[in-house]
Amino acid sequence: MTAVPVELLADRLRRAGEVAASHGVDVVLITPGTDLRYLIGAEGATHERLTCLVLPAAGHLAPPALVVPALEAPGLAGLPLEHLGVEVLTWTDSEDPYLLVSDLAGGPTRMAVADTMPAAHVFGLRDTFPGVAQSLAGPVLRELRMRKDAAEVAQLRAAGAAIDRVHARMAEFLKAGRTEAQVGADITAAIVEEGHTGAAFVIVGSGPNGASPHHDVSDRVIETGDVVVVDIGGPLPSGYNSDCTRSYAVGAGPVAAVREAYAVLLDAQERAVRAVRPGVPAEDIDAAAREPLTAAGLGERFVHRTGHGIGLDVHEEPYIVGGNPLPLEPGMAFSVEPGVYVEGEWGARIEDIVVVTENGCERLNSRPRELVVL
Amino acid sequence: MTAVPVELLADRLRRAGEVAASHGVDVVLITPGTDLRYLIGAEGATHERLTCLVLPAAGHLAPPALVVPALEAPGLAGLPLEHLGVEVLTWTDSEDPYLLVSDLAGGPTRMAVADTMPAAHVFGLRDTFPGVAQSLAGPVLRELRMRKDAAEVAQLRAAGAAIDRVHARMAEFLKAGRTEAQVGADITAAIVEEGHTGAAFVIVGSGPNGASPHHDVSDRVIETGDVVVVDIGGPLPSGYNSDCTRSYAVGAGPVAAVREAYAVLLDAQERAVRAVRPGVPAEDIDAAAREPLTAAGLGERFVHRTGHGIGLDVHEEPYIVGGNPLPLEPGMAFSVEPGVYVEGEWGARIEDIVVVTENGCERLNSRPRELVVL
Repeated sequence: MTAVPVELLADRLRRAGEVAASHGVDVVLITPGTDLRYLIGAEGATHERLTCLVLPAAGHLAPPALVVPALEAPGLAGLPLEHLGVEVLTWTDSEDPYLLVSDLAGGPTRMAVADTMPAAHVFGLRDTFPGVAQSLAGPVLRELRMRKDAAEVAQLRAAGAAIDRVHARMAEFLKAGRTEAQVGADITAAIVEEGHTGAAFVIVGSGPNGASPHHDVSDRVIETGDVVVVDIGGPLPSGYNSDCTRSYAVGAGPVAAVREAYAVLLDAQERAVRAVRPGVPAEDIDAAAREPLTAAGLGERFVHRTGHGIGLDVHEEPYIVGGNPLPLEPGMAFSVEPGVYVEGEWGARIEDIVVVTENGCERLNSRPRELVVL
Repeated sequence: MTAVPVELLADRLRRAGEVAASHGVDVVLITPGTDLRYLIGAEGATHERLTCLVLPAAGHLAPPALVVPALEAPGLAGLPLEHLGVEVLTWTDSEDPYLLVSDLAGGPTRMAVADTMPAAHVFGLRDTFPGVAQSLAGPVLRELRMRKDAAEVAQLRAAGAAIDRVHARMAEFLKAGRTEAQVGADITAAIVEEGHTGAAFVIVGSGPNGASPHHDVSDRVIETGDVVVVDIGGPLPSGYNSDCTRSYAVGAGPVAAVREAYAVLLDAQERAVRAVRPGVPAEDIDAAAREPLTAAGLGERFVHRTGHGIGLDVHEEPYIVGGNPLPLEPGMAFSVEPGVYVEGEWGARIEDIVVVTENGCERLNSRPRELVVL
């Protein structure tokens, strides 16, 4: 785990409290997960016992506090909680942790809970705070998390370079006669060798399996002439994720129909990336990718949104999807990944992570985007 | 993944519907996780897109249905959903999946949602079903899941044997001069070599670190004379988990004070296991472990509950804890794991998984429970 500077964490806690107040929220309750890592530097243990950051909105008097099972308390030793002014309160198995939260929350009218908080805790809090409105903390946290600061962009850049190194080695792994699972196992090892703490996902979709966008790997033996979608990524020790897709042709160039469709896909991805700049609505990037595909009669073959934000989560805000009017801002990081999927036959996808800059965007992946023949 | 016979899944779906009806629940809504695996044979993908089993309670007319993102649908290919009479309904990114659930749920008065359902989905359903009471599905599912059938006991037995084989190899890994992290990495590899799909947790708590029950591993170098708590486990391909703790002395027998306390701990674990039989309240097993420790002045050193149920989750019902009057029944499987923790000095714990039988219990771990000197 890479330590986040304490000043940065303190600033995030303060700003989260301010955004909460501006949303009419009195207290934000964050259970283990990436929101907790963003705010205090550690994800916490996702056991059935309640661990919960109690963060009063700006204007409330109580300081932030962390409710944690006594058993888990030693795991907090490395965190700068005292410097952050976060009080730690432990509870044992014979106590009610929701009452402890209630003692700290200061009589709220509205509480916001982490989007990933399990229902068991949501209802535990609901029943302990009768009449208190519950909403999601996502809209509060995303105001912070979707605009990456310089240190976060540096981590995403490092993640992009690490996954590019794995794609650069693809000829070692991806060969006719091997199964997708064998190739995937080698890629998983390479993802770790190149600096990730693990592989979060390894999609090797060969031939007809490439037409299933969320395929992982199978025992299908890769054949000469297959188009293979390789969509891979994972977290660095900092927690920031990589995610990059390239499509390869194995042993021989593809047939004309595939070549023609791929040329349109390449153009679609390029146009979408070029459309990225501050002020442009997220949905316009989706439209920019969709237009050339639709014009070429491939609109129905592009069955998913164009992209998703990325950071401590592989999928987070902003989503690059029709219906999302959110104007892009500097520091927003997301994937641009149009695809073409022909059921039962083949599929292809091209994915880069981009970060919005003052004038346009920076691409964090730089491997060739053409259909490389291995 | 090991396939569960379709008859067994069909029976579980039917019984879950019956228990739901007896709990006054109209519909059970299960998002990805072990409850879903228990009911349909696969955990599902825990992405931000909604996947949800809609299971009407017995007496309602609608058949069970699975709402799933169109992207994820190909991943269901191996499941016997048609044989189970589970209708599959897909949705795309421009649609509202909660409305789809609403169309299937048949106007419920009370819905029960998976304990692990993320708040984002809990509130999505709450807002789509105004006025419909929401409660946890845990009380429904646990009626089924905490009583293991013969096939489940066989899987837990296999998991116990697999983790015993890792403990049997401990002399290969655990040596003075190595760090806990080095030992832990070797144990992780051995857990996989012995048949698990991965290590769910690897605690190597040496010397003073043994006093933190949920320690994992650190860079502390193990010294001659250390007592080391090794608490390890993970899932088999069937999804059923192992979990076994042994404490070791490295290079030399421990000092008298440790030896004496350990003898009491061994007696406490033995008494607790011997107390297990049908009809005994769960809390009595906790008391049986606690009594000899308290009598020896070590009651304050045993800071956690005596055990937890185990199955598809490492921690599940029944919990062996003071205040739980649940009478034990044949087929219940749980850990018996008292410990002694002396802060800043040392700790020890002895843990076996047991399954309640008609007359007592079967232990699923059989490595020596004495403080083995390596």
